Amino acid sequence: MEAQLPEELSSEQRAKILAEALPYIRAFHGKRILIKYGGSAMTQENLKRFFAEDIALLSFIGVKPIIVHGGGPQIGALLKKIGKESRFVSGLRVTDAETMDVVEMVLVAKVNKDVVSLINSFGGKAVGISGRDGGLIKAKKAKRIAGVDEDLGLVGDVDKINPEIISCLESSAFIPVVAPVGAGPGEKPFNINADTAAGALSASLKTEKFILLTDVPGVLDSDGVMISSLSEEQAEDLITKGVVSGGMIPKIGCCLNALRGGVPKAHVIDGRVPHALLLEMLTDEGIGTEIVREKAPGI
Amino acid sequence: MEAQLPEELSSEQRAKILAEALPYIRAFHGKRILIKYGGSAMTQENLKRFFAEDIALLSFIGVKPIIVHGGGPQIGALLKKIGKESRFVSGLRVTDAETMDVVEMVLVAKVNKDVVSLINSFGGKAVGISGRDGGLIKAKKAKRIAGVDEDLGLVGDVDKINPEIISCLESSAFIPVVAPVGAGPGEKPFNINADTAAGALSASLKTEKFILLTDVPGVLDSDGVMISSLSEEQAEDLITKGVVSGGMIPKIGCCLNALRGGVPKAHVIDGRVPHALLLEMLTDEGIGTEIVREKAPGI
Amino acid sequence: MEAQLPEELSSEQRAKILAEALPYIRAFHGKRILIKYGGSAMTQENLKRFFAEDIALLSFIGVKPIIVHGGGPQIGALLKKIGKESRFVSGLRVTDAETMDVVEMVLVAKVNKDVVSLINSFGGKAVGISGRDGGLIKAKKAKRIAGVDEDLGLVGDVDKINPEIISCLESSAFIPVVAPVGAGPGEKPFNINADTAAGALSASLKTEKFILLTDVPGVLDSDGVMISSLSEEQAEDLITKGVVSGGMIPKIGCCLNALRGGVPKAHVIDGRVPHALLLEMLTDEGIGTEIVREKAPGI
Amino acid sequence: MEAQLPEELSSEQRAKILAEALPYIRAFHGKRILIKYGGSAMTQENLKRFFAEDIALLSFIGVKPIIVHGGGPQIGALLKKIGKESRFVSGLRVTDAETMDVVEMVLVAKVNKDVVSLINSFGGKAVGISGRDGGLIKAKKAKRIAGVDEDLGLVGDVDKINPEIISCLESSAFIPVVAPVGAGPGEKPFNINADTAAGALSASLKTEKFILLTDVPGVLDSDGVMISSLSEEQAEDLITKGVVSGGMIPKIGCCLNALRGGVPKAHVIDGRVPHALLLEMLTDEGIGTEIVREKAPGI
Amino acid sequence: MEAQLPEELSSEQRAKILAEALPYIRAFHGKRILIKYGGSAMTQENLKRFFAEDIALLSFIGVKPIIVHGGGPQIGALLKKIGKESRFVSGLRVTDAETMDVVEMVLVAKVNKDVVSLINSFGGKAVGISGRDGGLIKAKKAKRIAGVDEDLGLVGDVDKINPEIISCLESSAFIPVVAPVGAGPGEKPFNINADTAAGALSASLKTEKFILLTDVPGVLDSDGVMISSLSEEQAEDLITKGVVSGGMIPKIGCCLNALRGGVPKAHVIDGRVPHALLLEMLTDEGIGTEIVREKAPGI
Amino acid sequence: MEAQLPEELSSEQRAKILAEALPYIRAFHGKRILIKYGGSAMTQENLKRFFAEDIALLSFIGVKPIIVHGGGPQIGALLKKIGKESRFVSGLRVTDAETMDVVEMVLVAKVNKDVVSLINSFGGKAVGISGRDGGLIKAKKAKRIAGVDEDLGLVGDVDKINPEIISCLESSAFIPVVAPVGAGPGEKPFNINADTAAGALSASLKTEKFILLTDVPGVLDSDGVMISSLSEEQAEDLITKGVVSGGMIPKIGCCLNALRGGVPKAHVIDGRVPHALLLEMLTDEGIGTEIVREKAPGI
Repeated sequence: MEAQLPEELSSEQRAKILAEALPYIRAFHGKRILIKYGGSAMTQENLKRFFAEDIALLSFIGVKPIIVHGGGPQIGALLKKIGKESRFVSGLRVTDAETMDVVEMVLVAKVNKDVVSLINSFGGKAVGISGRDGGLIKAKKAKRIAGVDEDLGLVGDVDKINPEIISCLESSAFIPVVAPVGAGPGEKPFNINADTAAGALSASLKTEKFILLTDVPGVLDSDGVMISSLSEEQAEDLITKGVVSGGMIPKIGCCLNALRGGVPKAHVIDGRVPHALLLEMLTDEGIGTEIVREKAPGI
Repeated sequence: MEAQLPEELSSEQRAKILAEALPYIRAFHGKRILIKYGGSAMTQENLKRFFAEDIALLSFIGVKPIIVHGGGPQIGALLKKIGKESRFVSGLRVTDAETMDVVEMVLVAKVNKDVVSLINSFGGKAVGISGRDGGLIKAKKAKRIAGVDEDLGLVGDVDKINPEIISCLESSAFIPVVAPVGAGPGEKPFNINADTAAGALSASLKTEKFILLTDVPGVLDSDGVMISSLSEEQAEDLITKGVVSGGMIPKIGCCLNALRGGVPKAHVIDGRVPHALLLEMLTDEGIGTEIVREKAPGI
Repeated sequence: MEAQLPEELSSEQRAKILAEALPYIRAFHGKRILIKYGGSAMTQENLKRFFAEDIALLSFIGVKPIIVHGGGPQIGALLKKIGKESRFVSGLRVTDAETMDVVEMVLVAKVNKDVVSLINSFGGKAVGISGRDGGLIKAKKAKRIAGVDEDLGLVGDVDKINPEIISCLESSAFIPVVAPVGAGPGEKPFNINADTAAGALSASLKTEKFILLTDVPGVLDSDGVMISSLSEEQAEDLITKGVVSGGMIPKIGCCLNALRGGVPKAHVIDGRVPHALLLEMLTDEGIGTEIVREKAPGI
Repeated sequence: MEAQLPEELSSEQRAKILAEALPYIRAFHGKRILIKYGGSAMTQENLKRFFAEDIALLSFIGVKPIIVHGGGPQIGALLKKIGKESRFVSGLRVTDAETMDVVEMVLVAKVNKDVVSLINSFGGKAVGISGRDGGLIKAKKAKRIAGVDEDLGLVGDVDKINPEIISCLESSAFIPVVAPVGAGPGEKPFNINADTAAGALSASLKTEKFILLTDVPGVLDSDGVMISSLSEEQAEDLITKGVVSGGMIPKIGCCLNALRGGVPKAHVIDGRVPHALLLEMLTDEGIGTEIVREKAPGI
Repeated sequence: MEAQLPEELSSEQRAKILAEALPYIRAFHGKRILIKYGGSAMTQENLKRFFAEDIALLSFIGVKPIIVHGGGPQIGALLKKIGKESRFVSGLRVTDAETMDVVEMVLVAKVNKDVVSLINSFGGKAVGISGRDGGLIKAKKAKRIAGVDEDLGLVGDVDKINPEIISCLESSAFIPVVAPVGAGPGEKPFNINADTAAGALSASLKTEKFILLTDVPGVLDSDGVMISSLSEEQAEDLITKGVVSGGMIPKIGCCLNALRGGVPKAHVIDGRVPHALLLEMLTDEGIGTEIVREKAPGI
Repeated sequence: MEAQLPEELSSEQRAKILAEALPYIRAFHGKRILIKYGGSAMTQENLKRFFAEDIALLSFIGVKPIIVHGGGPQIGALLKKIGKESRFVSGLRVTDAETMDVVEMVLVAKVNKDVVSLINSFGGKAVGISGRDGGLIKAKKAKRIAGVDEDLGLVGDVDKINPEIISCLESSAFIPVVAPVGAGPGEKPFNINADTAAGALSASLKTEKFILLTDVPGVLDSDGVMISSLSEEQAEDLITKGVVSGGMIPKIGCCLNALRGGVPKAHVIDGRVPHALLLEMLTDEGIGTEIVREKAPGI
């Protein structure tokens, strides 16, 4: 259900809100922002539209968004359709060649092109690529998980990023939308976790922000209260002390990787809020949790 | 007094208003907009700030604003201070050399640099020039007014525009702020009516819009009701039939000149409305009266 | 089985063959060549490698190849796997939304990225896109086939080409590999015949050549003898007189469309010959049938 | 009175003089030269014309001149006209807001545009700006003078130079003419001593030369004889030992500041000599006193 | 013997002469000037130096000089040395292969590189090429002279000019010095008359001026008085009526060819005058005879 | 006699040979290659053509060749013709002014332009220059040879390389062909050994390879067997131990100079083999001896 604007909202009030965006527009003008796109924002029809609209708007006002998307649920659906069952080890899908085919088809075609088309329907200039295009993401076979005997198959880690294709697209004001499939040994496709790929790209591209769109309000403290700002060290502490757990651990891990790579700020935000991206980028409020690099890398 | 936002305005509602701006941002991205700046918007402290903020914001989101300002009241004040009286003929100030000195000093220094500095205080990159800089405006002595015997002195008409300095500034994302003084014969300064200079520049620069900030709601019909849209022909009719009169006649004249020079739309808007520019450029409402070129020039 | 070089082939003989390529390299340096890739050259392992090697080589010596590929057999295989049957009307697959999903997944992900990766494994810099990326191919619903009552669903015709993304990729020496899916009304995916898409792109990009890789030696005359060169008029005659028939008719149709769009030469060549592209482009022999535009378009 | 050329001056002799300029043209080609313009050269009609002609010529032969001008006498005249008296403390004008208005109007409008127009009348492409344009000169309130209790008001020191607007103008071959008004806290105008502003700009822009046009022949030794060349150290000595005094002390101070900022040579030359600039720049004689940096900065 | 400057020539007088050059520098800034270099200016030591100095100076002040030189006397000297005699037919040297070798060696090596080096010794950036380099001058065998039975051998006419190498050199501010040898059929060297080559290059490059340095004061009328200015028609008349004769006829012919190719002015000037080029280009006097195109070509 | 291709060489076999070149084309794409051209490859008609064809081909496939040529035999021939005898000291020609004239004429005109024209006849874009053009090679008088009392005259060593003219030509895809004459003191021509000039240019231009075309199969070991690969150290050893002698010593010296200047590989190859360059650059075999830099310079 869309937000209703109060009847009495005058022109002046509308203008005031627009004008409030100025300092943020100024700050992010010409800057790269890496957005990991996933969760409800990618499955709920109206949230998808808000997201696409936000990306188009950010692009027009001079921000350079780069999107990395996941696609877990859609992959499961197709696997089911072809009667292929997946086994999971420590939450990772064991990926044989047939599964990889499905993963790639869903991510690179179905999901990727839907995101691209929706952005383009709002006048954006999105172009979808995978990590195999232009040698963007070189993958290596993921290390075995400690204590697990089973081979995960075509699950990969990021080995090397070659950002040339991103710069090429940006130079003509195209918006890159990246499916997290890498080119492994022999140029074979490897399944890379989307959060991981996003964090690695953010670090390699030295983006100004790394934003994770999730289905939670942000990082919660031990009382279940959202924390609005964390230092790197505090974020590490939360993991060590077991305050955060489950799916939030790898998310914070990707944020920390981005920060260590030189990104000044990472954000875990609630993709269920309409126009979450605009709110985070262009208003005083911000939403969700930010994790801040303590100091310049290497100093 | 600033607009108060209703307490209950939620994040979603804020975001919705920002998102509404997308189609306008898309439409004006990379386009030149000529704004004639004057009236209350140039004298009232809070309106001045709103205007400067709007210009900075437009510049950041990819619009290329060019500002031409007037300065009548401030000129009168200084003339009074030095005990110099002006005679007016048909509403035009008879301009001898001493008066011209005052005109130029007020327009080119005091008024121009105040506009520049205010925009810069919001992070814009404004640069103030006069029509004498870089040969921007060549002036010729204004024709005598029919039936008037008196020489108007250093009052000038636009003879030729050399837009090189505007393009140069734009190429580095500077915002040109132009004082309406032209270089007449012998490179002497000539006093040019600001509306006239603005219309001529708009036509020469083929801007996407020509916006006149005034102290009236717009063009009114014979019942005193504001007209929101006019064709060129209708605008001419209003003058011929005497519906509009007084100071509105030359304003519509400048609009028509801009349209004839190839500008698609001219707007007479109410500069007393806070953020009038943003409202006109980035919301569904628009404000004031637009005058629309009927067809492509020369077809 | 790979070609064996005669034992006695001396260095001089090798050098002579390399040197023979000079006039062709000279002629096509910096020129765009559109290659429709399909048939055995896309399914047989060694032919796939020869093709990828040829593309990489052409790219390195200064030719600008653009590849459009099909994928019929692979689509059928996946449809079968998910238990979806296709009905064909006049040889065209009736495409409902579920079928379109499969078409897009196979073309845009599986087939496209395999081509991309294979070229990249030879050092090329290929990037795979679909017609939905960057607004490359706008599609419209295909017209009903005369005398057929059935709606073909999401089968599309090319409505408009926006070549900006191709130029962008070329400017950084990337090799565009295009899957023939277009953005129809509402940015929905439409299935476009690969030959048709290739011909339309060739015409829009004003390529120097349009090359159709097929599984036949070329165009045959009524005695079954291959014709090495045809004028536009002669090609039209062959169709009118029924000399060519079946699948060859639309292939010649696409060639003629490219020629009418300004492409000087179209070629129907035998993709079953190893390194067919290199032979066609860089040796005296040429292979298959060329169709030649009679005169400059519009004269 | 203009110089008369001896009747007998032959073509050869004319050509010889032109040819003598070659080594100087070669040396300064493409180099920035900062000229502080003031004194008689700015008030005497024929000297003004010679100066403007020289600047246009230098610009055409590939030198990049940047001009900073003062305007003391003209300021005094207008203050007198409006009946405002100035108090001076240690030679600095106590500048209240009303005085600042006058200072800015005279410098930025009257004086600046007259210089610009005169250069343009010789075919140069001058553009006049103030330190408030494009954030060129950030000013801070000047420190109190030791032992003086009085606040000097809006008298400023150079806090920061942002040379972007200078580079922008130079990139289109415009000649920047700068009025020494800076943007102080709150973007308010501050009155900066022209010599000081010129020296700071020269250092920031790493000009090849810093030239002060004055109304004296150069720096004189204790016998009143002009010194043609001084090292930094010797120049400092002259001040310490009291050989130079009065207005020459701050002039040498600005020269030393420029040298410390990396400018290789500063010149104090006699602006009363017709074409003083050309003589200094393009002939064997040079005029006035040069002060030479002893060694590369920081070595 | 060098010109002596009168003792009493003051600084002001020197400066005045420099300043007089401004309008000429302005007019020729960025313009191409083709100079045919020959005669005494190329053989007399001090004149050679003046010429080289002038070229360097013109280049530094923004003129783009292109030099074409001859070399008749030096060719004769070497032919004599190797005991080869030349037969002349209507003033043209019958050129067999051995003679052509000598012609090319003298023009392309000895003469060309001496000019290049002398200009470079004054700080210019000259590069010597022949018409065979970069395909600059395609030559065809010269037509037989009417009524003459003898074949002239490797004497050529200009068939086609490919100016790419000239533009390439100019883009890095190099000064092209061209030896008049063309690439004939089979890329063989052909001997082209230097005046002819110069006129053809001037026309092809659309230079602003075509200047012929000769050993006469200019074109003389029937009373032996030099004519300072001629229209195309008047120049043709002088030939028709036999007023000019001998070597002056082909010189005027080349001038007329340049004018017909779109060059506005051709000059026949006296290379025996020191700094003849500077005098012609940068002073009020001009020297020699100018021939002026009457109207725009093709109108 | 040209290589005969075996009758039975099929299309596939031809294509295979072309395709074998891919890895080499990839490796040298956009790289500079310095080729010292001399010996039989420069005197035998068919070898000359093969060389020119190879250079044109390398240029078209994206390699940037730079050629330095010698010309000893041709110089001797002309000296003989004019009856001038040369004395040799330690293998170096004592070069008086008259001899220098001959050297320059032969190298810069005859030899250089023949190479240029032959390359151009194959569609290459060659431009011939000497070391005196654009200040490419500054020469100094060669040091006296130890123990030799005689002055060698105008024999020079490379003093300084200014590569601007090479970069300029390359930027327009011209192929520089350099005659080894340098500009000595007073811009006078100096005779520089071609191997020496080539090695110095290779080092200065940081070429990817330095290739010496000679009349021997390569460097031979003490048994007269060709060595295919040598390290720097091994090459030095061969000289020290006297395994190589005579003319091979300075050749290896030039190679070592190039390597020390940062060139990764130098090659001594047999110019008597048809298409020796193509074989060395584009086939698996390579020919002759390579000398490899052991490590990055300065590490």
